Amino acid sequence: MIPVEEALARVLALAMPLPAEDVPLAEAAGRVMLGSAIAARAQPPFAASAMDGYAMAATDARPGARLRVVGTAQAGARFAAAVAPGVAVRIFTGAPMPQGTDHVVIQEDVEVSGDTITLRAVGNTNVRPMGADFAAGARLDGPRRLRPADLALLAAMNVPHVRAARRPEVAFIATGDELVMPGATPGPDQIVASNLFALRAMAEAEGARTRLLPIARDTLDSLDTVLELAEGADVVVTIGGASVGDHDLVAQAVRARGFAPAFWKIAMRPGKPLMAGRLNEALMLGLPGNPVSAIVCGHLFLLPALRALQGLRDVAPRPVAARLGRAVAENGPRAHYMRARLVPGDPLPVATPFDSQDSALLGLLAEAGALLIRPPHAPALAEGAEVACLPL
Amino acid sequence: MIPVEEALARVLALAMPLPAEDVPLAEAAGRVMLGSAIAARAQPPFAASAMDGYAMAATDARPGARLRVVGTAQAGARFAAAVAPGVAVRIFTGAPMPQGTDHVVIQEDVEVSGDTITLRAVGNTNVRPMGADFAAGARLDGPRRLRPADLALLAAMNVPHVRAARRPEVAFIATGDELVMPGATPGPDQIVASNLFALRAMAEAEGARTRLLPIARDTLDSLDTVLELAEGADVVVTIGGASVGDHDLVAQAVRARGFAPAFWKIAMRPGKPLMAGRLNEALMLGLPGNPVSAIVCGHLFLLPALRALQGLRDVAPRPVAARLGRAVAENGPRAHYMRARLVPGDPLPVATPFDSQDSALLGLLAEAGALLIRPPHAPALAEGAEVACLPL
Repeated sequence: MIPVEEALARVLALAMPLPAEDVPLAEAAGRVMLGSAIAARAQPPFAASAMDGYAMAATDARPGARLRVVGTAQAGARFAAAVAPGVAVRIFTGAPMPQGTDHVVIQEDVEVSGDTITLRAVGNTNVRPMGADFAAGARLDGPRRLRPADLALLAAMNVPHVRAARRPEVAFIATGDELVMPGATPGPDQIVASNLFALRAMAEAEGARTRLLPIARDTLDSLDTVLELAEGADVVVTIGGASVGDHDLVAQAVRARGFAPAFWKIAMRPGKPLMAGRLNEALMLGLPGNPVSAIVCGHLFLLPALRALQGLRDVAPRPVAARLGRAVAENGPRAHYMRARLVPGDPLPVATPFDSQDSALLGLLAEAGALLIRPPHAPALAEGAEVACLPL
Repeated sequence: MIPVEEALARVLALAMPLPAEDVPLAEAAGRVMLGSAIAARAQPPFAASAMDGYAMAATDARPGARLRVVGTAQAGARFAAAVAPGVAVRIFTGAPMPQGTDHVVIQEDVEVSGDTITLRAVGNTNVRPMGADFAAGARLDGPRRLRPADLALLAAMNVPHVRAARRPEVAFIATGDELVMPGATPGPDQIVASNLFALRAMAEAEGARTRLLPIARDTLDSLDTVLELAEGADVVVTIGGASVGDHDLVAQAVRARGFAPAFWKIAMRPGKPLMAGRLNEALMLGLPGNPVSAIVCGHLFLLPALRALQGLRDVAPRPVAARLGRAVAENGPRAHYMRARLVPGDPLPVATPFDSQDSALLGLLAEAGALLIRPPHAPALAEGAEVACLPL
């Protein structure tokens, strides 16, 4: 048995970063930017008013001063002439500061009479210096998963395209004579394929495109036919194969396609041997068929692999702290990922593991907000103890 | 000035839930399921083996017992005959328990000799009772944003379609003569439109479809032309209009299309008056043009509105607890949403507000992991004090 961390390292060693491609900014949300984006210009590109008011020379900004208003500066339409001492320009937020001015008195502090203003107060400068946000040539560095604020920043930098890792394409193959797709009428011995829908949604949320392939039956022919449909995918994920011994048929089928499967027995619950390797150009993962085991393995191995394929570093799942909602017993030699209810708490959320940790129970998994991590040989803990959780 | 909470309540009062539609399960990730999904059958639909091993009558499960193996039960292919005492059936995980059996001895506890097994130990029952996960008729209740595990559960329930709120369609209109789209060459007085890219990505992550409309210039004609392109959207979001006084032209333009705009001065920083109301069939929000203000208002008002349109309850942003990474001064009368760096901490993450809280700084917003919430009149706090944050 190898620890979870070692299994993850082995999976990541198989995940070769995908090539970069040009992505229009409007389609770049959630993509992993590679390299650096460079600001084409400073922001603001000129000293700009931060308020609606009146621009003037700072030397004129004295309470009681009277100034003649000689024009207007709007965002997008500057006041083109130079401004002499003793006069002011009506100015709006974002407008370039007219030449000769370096102070804005906000409109609330001004009394207007015809084309003359009298300053009641002068306040702050209210000027945003050129480049206050960023200078020309400023960089946003990758690898970086682009969040909404990043898109706004890149737009302001006038970066219309970014270099981003190609989205990994993941082919999902559920295997087993016992499976039918939702909407079909299962025979008396059959059940409905379920976990591939969860794994697919998880992969897509991580930036992947997915192929939901037909269910492979428990014959080499059927598996081979479906594996052929997976060609060209960056990641091939098989689920199950346990009806004839763990992965036995799946391993035979991929071996016939040039793959040397590696199995690792991982010191974790729920979980089983994970099959992994490279199938020609693809990373291949063979997940257990038990629904909860497959989904937990998806969180621990598939999602980090998808992050690594997209060029991200620091791809391991990130636990958050919580307090135990009930006592837990000492743990055995395998890391236990307990399904737990997670409710807000002050200051830490409260994680309460379910009574049943049967890895077949999807109903409980759907109610679970987190996987409570119990490291190997962790001691018994009382209610209220601090624990680490993976939010689901 | 009205508190943020009251402004949110007023926005939500304008957000009429959208009608439901049928969505295939394979496309339902992230959608808000309405009503209840009902399990078409129990899971498991039969008592099933939880392990690979040998099925027998519990009365035969004694260490040292020798049993003849009379057949095989696989997932998807049961052993069809009744099993008499004294014999066993080879069984694999997920296979229906043969008639007459109620105990599975795992293969590791069995010695095999030809078609006879000798039990070294007997262990647990290793049987999953029919309906252990859920009974026929079990429900998953909406409104509920469907997470990956929900999809697996719905699949197992054999629910191929769900009723889900239609995805709201949001039209974004940036306004201002000073704006150009990324990739264009800005004039000397112009800047690049930025915040609509952030707002759009935020809305899409919340389940919306979006229209990125052309920039409206500061004329009624231009605004009217772009507003016409927004027709049919469920939400119309304008950004800016401040170059000629807050929202002045935008308000005139929408009034001409039958809208009575309401403005609220909200007791918050950053932020400005929010314009809101119903524009014919649409919810309309007029956000400030300042990039950070617009994005913060998007988090506080637009995203909750999108949740409400999709039928969710409890839609307000959910703060999380953090510890202050540096002291903060007493707050004034307006709630302050301070941009802060958020780093993991034990047990609470550490939120450190930036020195500059200038609402024009997109560079800092992109570095911010959270908005640190300072309620009106909050007292000064020392480093290490517990605060509430909205993760970004």
